[in-house]
Amino acid sequence: MRIALDAMGSDNHPVPDVEGAVLASKTYGVTVVLVGDQSTIKRELQKHDTIGLPLEIVHANQVVDMDDKPAQVTREKPESSIHVGMGLVEDGQADAFVSMGNTGAVLAIATLQKLKRIRGVHRPALSSIVPFVGKHVILADIGANVDCKAEWLHQFAQMGSIYARQALHYANPKIALLSNGEEEGKGYSLIHETIPLLLADDSLHYVGNIEPKEVVHGGADVVISDGFVGNIFVKSLEAMGMALFDGIKGEIMATQRGKLGGLLLKPTFRSVYKKFDPFEIGGAPLLGINGVVIIGHGRSNAKAIQNAIRQAKFAVEGDVVEAIKDGINNRSV
Amino acid sequence: MRIALDAMGSDNHPVPDVEGAVLASKTYGVTVVLVGDQSTIKRELQKHDTIGLPLEIVHANQVVDMDDKPAQVTREKPESSIHVGMGLVEDGQADAFVSMGNTGAVLAIATLQKLKRIRGVHRPALSSIVPFVGKHVILADIGANVDCKAEWLHQFAQMGSIYARQALHYANPKIALLSNGEEEGKGYSLIHETIPLLLADDSLHYVGNIEPKEVVHGGADVVISDGFVGNIFVKSLEAMGMALFDGIKGEIMATQRGKLGGLLLKPTFRSVYKKFDPFEIGGAPLLGINGVVIIGHGRSNAKAIQNAIRQAKFAVEGDVVEAIKDGINNRSV
Repeated sequence: MRIALDAMGSDNHPVPDVEGAVLASKTYGVTVVLVGDQSTIKRELQKHDTIGLPLEIVHANQVVDMDDKPAQVTREKPESSIHVGMGLVEDGQADAFVSMGNTGAVLAIATLQKLKRIRGVHRPALSSIVPFVGKHVILADIGANVDCKAEWLHQFAQMGSIYARQALHYANPKIALLSNGEEEGKGYSLIHETIPLLLADDSLHYVGNIEPKEVVHGGADVVISDGFVGNIFVKSLEAMGMALFDGIKGEIMATQRGKLGGLLLKPTFRSVYKKFDPFEIGGAPLLGINGVVIIGHGRSNAKAIQNAIRQAKFAVEGDVVEAIKDGINNRSV
Repeated sequence: MRIALDAMGSDNHPVPDVEGAVLASKTYGVTVVLVGDQSTIKRELQKHDTIGLPLEIVHANQVVDMDDKPAQVTREKPESSIHVGMGLVEDGQADAFVSMGNTGAVLAIATLQKLKRIRGVHRPALSSIVPFVGKHVILADIGANVDCKAEWLHQFAQMGSIYARQALHYANPKIALLSNGEEEGKGYSLIHETIPLLLADDSLHYVGNIEPKEVVHGGADVVISDGFVGNIFVKSLEAMGMALFDGIKGEIMATQRGKLGGLLLKPTFRSVYKKFDPFEIGGAPLLGINGVVIIGHGRSNAKAIQNAIRQAKFAVEGDVVEAIKDGINNRSV
């Protein structure tokens, strides 16, 4: 298996990207094709022992910055590492593309220029896979599409369900709609319009509306929302998590007693943090595209990037793209 | 000042409700009118030293349960403590009504049966006041209205701004729209439609779109959203906060080392928890109603209820209802 990695993706590229590639090629037996500025990648690779590892480099002339506007990137940076890496998948020279880079740019390039939507897919969905209570929960959409239609949400549910089955090996993934309450009648118009579509679809194990608290407690395997709501949800969880950890850290460092307690609880904090750490999964698929594209966070470290490559491997092994093609076009999975 | 309190409101009513009333009447010099089953309240009051305290009881025949449907309550429980308490405000026998009870029922009774909307208000907004980084931030709407129109959000901003000024004494409250990014173009159609209304309104100090992280860091004083998004936001913060505290607690109790560390860090956790504790504020106003109505959480303890009564006092002292009447009808504040 050959997985193309955007070596110019993360905030600190190419350092964690290259290290993640080295770790993944060593651990998972996949060939990692590093895409980006050749001399930069070569220099970075020299810091690692790569003898015998299945690593390759494909040069790309341009780098997409985190604050580049997607529309600008598609126009002005046609030779970016994102374009080149996705092109490898398009040409059959790689089985998947992984990037920690500018999400909007990856999305725009995938949708408009490379790979493109699977026929029959209304809108690709940006997903996130979050480790809630030790279980991997797929959230979709978390930001690709605002102002959604019910048919789109229905497809997000189908694609999320297929991914959960094929890549995460969930036997009968529980699908839920993110809402402000579980009772019938809760939600807003889009939710009311989506429910009958999910209920009528025998391929889906739809379990109802679900509140944030239930999501965090693992109440469903695939949680569907429009991209605006999903984005607010994910960012709210992250914001609160960061605020609490920062708050605790600040208080601990303020007193001698706190420092001692903090030292004793180091394993505790590490273990709790790990339970919610998105880097344990590393990246999540852009669903509905003609190819496996895994997107991770710009802040990713090498471990996260290694894990994102593993996620790509799961998606390729699960033949997710073909399964979505079949599922969407037959309306039965 | 006379503040009517729903004595049958909280999950554990009347215990925390009565204790909160005793504390508030002692601390803030307001008369608290306890509304609910007279004999139950009397019995509960006997547990406290109430000699000389300005406490009164007004009997109500019916109790609204937390899982009662609002529509059912308005039809079938016209003599509930919520009806009677709000009636006291309507009749000028109390200056404000405070309840920890069924939010949907309070909302429905206020809007449809008692007090009613201020003339010119499209939709009343349910607010929350959250202590982010030591600053009290008003969120509106957090659940009264889904599928909002831009004009409604504009009014939520006006009412939130007036409340922040009059009750919280913010000189020039910063208003922001909750969004998935700060850049222009982020958000969804409702946000795009609302921005020009806020920009054109000289009475508002509109500072732009704001992400959850910035809200938590105190980036604005009044954060506006439609009720569905606001509800997901508030519930997500709460869910993550609870999950982390529960996770840490569980890990601490699992080992001897953890228990010792936990003991040392008790003041740390208490201090951090307090920074985010909604009970420090206790309740928030239903904005746009012909009277001060403060709603708190069913889980409230006595301290939270005391604080909710204090919030009602602030709102009455700030003459919030008159200020909203003027502000909405003159479109200038």
